[in-house]
Amino acid sequence: MKCGLVAADGAVLHRETRTTPRDAGARAVLDALLETVVELSQKAAADGHHVRAVGVVVPGIIDAGHGTVSAENLLWVNTPVRAEIQAALGPDHQVHLAHDVRAGGYAELRQGALRGTTNSLFLPLGTGIAAAMVVDGSLVSGDGYAGELGHTRFVHGEAAELCACGQYGCLETVASAAALARRYGARTGRVVDGAREVLELLADGDADAAIVWAEAQAALIDALVLYTTLVAPTRIAIGGGLVGAGETLLAPLRAGVHERLTFQREPEIVAAELGEEAGCLGAALLAWDRVTVDESGEPTE
Amino acid sequence: MKCGLVAADGAVLHRETRTTPRDAGARAVLDALLETVVELSQKAAADGHHVRAVGVVVPGIIDAGHGTVSAENLLWVNTPVRAEIQAALGPDHQVHLAHDVRAGGYAELRQGALRGTTNSLFLPLGTGIAAAMVVDGSLVSGDGYAGELGHTRFVHGEAAELCACGQYGCLETVASAAALARRYGARTGRVVDGAREVLELLADGDADAAIVWAEAQAALIDALVLYTTLVAPTRIAIGGGLVGAGETLLAPLRAGVHERLTFQREPEIVAAELGEEAGCLGAALLAWDRVTVDESGEPTE
Repeated sequence: MKCGLVAADGAVLHRETRTTPRDAGARAVLDALLETVVELSQKAAADGHHVRAVGVVVPGIIDAGHGTVSAENLLWVNTPVRAEIQAALGPDHQVHLAHDVRAGGYAELRQGALRGTTNSLFLPLGTGIAAAMVVDGSLVSGDGYAGELGHTRFVHGEAAELCACGQYGCLETVASAAALARRYGARTGRVVDGAREVLELLADGDADAAIVWAEAQAALIDALVLYTTLVAPTRIAIGGGLVGAGETLLAPLRAGVHERLTFQREPEIVAAELGEEAGCLGAALLAWDRVTVDESGEPTE
Repeated sequence: MKCGLVAADGAVLHRETRTTPRDAGARAVLDALLETVVELSQKAAADGHHVRAVGVVVPGIIDAGHGTVSAENLLWVNTPVRAEIQAALGPDHQVHLAHDVRAGGYAELRQGALRGTTNSLFLPLGTGIAAAMVVDGSLVSGDGYAGELGHTRFVHGEAAELCACGQYGCLETVASAAALARRYGARTGRVVDGAREVLELLADGDADAAIVWAEAQAALIDALVLYTTLVAPTRIAIGGGLVGAGETLLAPLRAGVHERLTFQREPEIVAAELGEEAGCLGAALLAWDRVTVDESGEPTE
């Protein structure tokens, strides 16, 4: 768990990382979250601050109406996260739940690589792949379901592998950091230390790394062309650990997308700027937005 | 050109159809539009009405900022349509330009099959295929570029045909009404009278019609699954001439999408309700929205 205290202007006053006790079960994960929220509130008070709102983001499906979360990685199924936090903190705190990647995209939109855009995409390539879509000036929610570009099919025919989501040929099965490591291992019989090692092998001229990388790139280019055709972003920010590869990753994507587009508006393709902090910062910015909305007297959800 | 006079409540007071003099060139098309707008204004006045706003929708790319339109079918390239209409009618009329399919989707959202939805899709299968996307309660614009689902790739490998847009394997190359007729003709050497005849042959058990139809369905199912995964609609309204086939078209799409989805929220798949009137009605509704916005004193674009 990445957590922090963030001022209204987006300044990060404190940050820390805690372990998620997934092995101890769903309730233990929730208790660890509640303990974190309470202790950070106490720290804020000790430092002379007053916590106005709590933003919690998770890799899962958020039901904003009911304040519940379903997240496979956290073992939660319709878990009433908002009510639990509210009970732990008292009623005078705003609690805002969001999807981690969408929150990361919001942080990139407000303070990072997507600043100034009204149509853009944040695509972090991590263990999995999800997207944060900015459309006509707003971060898309789709009632918590939108943005699953990682689970759209970009591998066809015999080559399509079964994805964890139950579909075949998902972008995530070839282009996530986890997929690069897994697929390199499957080709060579060697166990590699994550996508980073595959990228190092690639830089050293390893032929298998080049093939695995080329397959990932082809699917990513397909995905970016499709997204551009459907939603017309002016800028696409690639994030996640893989973006550490810099132009090795970005230059071929840019060239591949450029070559494929015909009538579409061509987006800039850039590296995300906020790194692993994006989700945590976005959680806070989304929570602060909620506070501002309330004080303006406008109705809240 | 489908045109009409529409009251503020959406009631259609008058409708008529005029020919588009495409063969006479870009200027002639524009002049025909201007003549239509002026004559309809005169008719409105003669009937005791006052035209407040003009909505014009075209199958092309609209630059809302500059009021210009590029539309291959009309031979227009950055044509200053808004300024021309404004000059023809005088400055006290609002003029609103929009994409024809998006306008049709807006009409379906306000008065048709998408009523009550906040995340939905209008997908007319006509000569071409474009989509109107409703996301988080709003019709997506993407600066005029969004919604080109017809020009995303759903045919792969050897089978992918060159599309008019310059890309290969676009949905439109297999699943538009024009594609059904063309592909049936290419398979059989017979000239058919449009997609309607292919559907009749299908109903009569024609094997070639069944193959052409199955290929269209497979691509459409792919497209609807992809759209559902990315944008999470609760309802999808299929429009255009092909929807006259009713459940012959819709039932296999519904079954195919249902079978493919795993974690996604399953959309209803229904027939659009407004038929060929949708674009014309949507043009008027969008124009009326502009009038209301102005009178509330809010800034306009």
